[in-house]
Amino acid sequence: MECSVYRLAERRRSVRRFHSGQVSLEDVLYAVRTALQAPSGANRQPWRFVIIYDQRVKARLRMVCEQWERRFHEGRGLPEWFRRWMEEREIGWEKPFLTEAPYILAVAADKKAPYSRESTWLAIGYLLLALEEKGLASLTYTPTNPRAAARILGIPDSYSLEALIPIGRPADNKGKEPRMRLEDAVFYNMWGAKND
Amino acid sequence: MECSVYRLAERRRSVRRFHSGQVSLEDVLYAVRTALQAPSGANRQPWRFVIIYDQRVKARLRMVCEQWERRFHEGRGLPEWFRRWMEEREIGWEKPFLTEAPYILAVAADKKAPYSRESTWLAIGYLLLALEEKGLASLTYTPTNPRAAARILGIPDSYSLEALIPIGRPADNKGKEPRMRLEDAVFYNMWGAKND
Repeated sequence: MECSVYRLAERRRSVRRFHSGQVSLEDVLYAVRTALQAPSGANRQPWRFVIIYDQRVKARLRMVCEQWERRFHEGRGLPEWFRRWMEEREIGWEKPFLTEAPYILAVAADKKAPYSRESTWLAIGYLLLALEEKGLASLTYTPTNPRAAARILGIPDSYSLEALIPIGRPADNKGKEPRMRLEDAVFYNMWGAKND
Repeated sequence: MECSVYRLAERRRSVRRFHSGQVSLEDVLYAVRTALQAPSGANRQPWRFVIIYDQRVKARLRMVCEQWERRFHEGRGLPEWFRRWMEEREIGWEKPFLTEAPYILAVAADKKAPYSRESTWLAIGYLLLALEEKGLASLTYTPTNPRAAARILGIPDSYSLEALIPIGRPADNKGKEPRMRLEDAVFYNMWGAKND
């Protein structure tokens, strides 16, 4: 068991291929319980979670997500740097993790709550670290057309689908993408100013 | 040292009054280092941090934030439930934590990066847990007029100021706001469905 948040954060990487072997539901619930402890605007706790393990639901989700991803990837609106970034990582319109991972966690946010999106993503930060603690890999996948995916899950219009998070054991051996240095991310007292 | 992300998350509460006594800058940097390990859209790492300890900068920030808070609190646009929620907690337009806390961490997000806001708030989730690990209290304060506060710090227009996070030792004895039960936040396979 890791004892340092930094070490969990450093160890955690995004994973796009999963082993289909079973994972303990208790471990997934542990991570959701952790997320529920996050702060939120006016403590409205705008988040709701749908834990998907039914293979038919996963297949429907994947189909709809890939339809929209395909349009997006083949469309002209894609910035060149982003197309290159995806190509280098072999990220295409296909999203096999949506059926491979034993669990897909859909995270929805109550649109009427103040700072609903901000609070929900903060809670997702808690969630990822708790999953890592349990040795579970994840990806914060954001569907191209969240509403289309939300409809598959029966999520009402008053909630926005923020992410689909596949959870399981990693089946790729890619490393973690490099992170920037502290000195490049931090200023002191004023934008652009270094510490004296 | 806590060994469980859940226990850190559970222990962590929002704090609005701080002791002005010194806090180790290294501990603040530890939390920022942790945040830098978070995933982000296309790994663009859109976040930048301004660590404010200069008392004059804090005073200017507080003045501008309170000006806008006062308008907001005295305005008619405030929903009644929100006004009551704030009154019950004695949250007014005054923001003493902006000058009391030894550090104010301003978090800005590159507006041009994909999923910039989502990524930045996920990283704030990492940050809060790392602060808690170091025994440091915090609040994710979102200014009413982020642009006015950003100008004080010289943050360029291409970045949005997402939060001002006071960091220090708590000087209130308020408990943590209650959280919802797992059963009320989680569905299985379909919105509204419980596990069988």
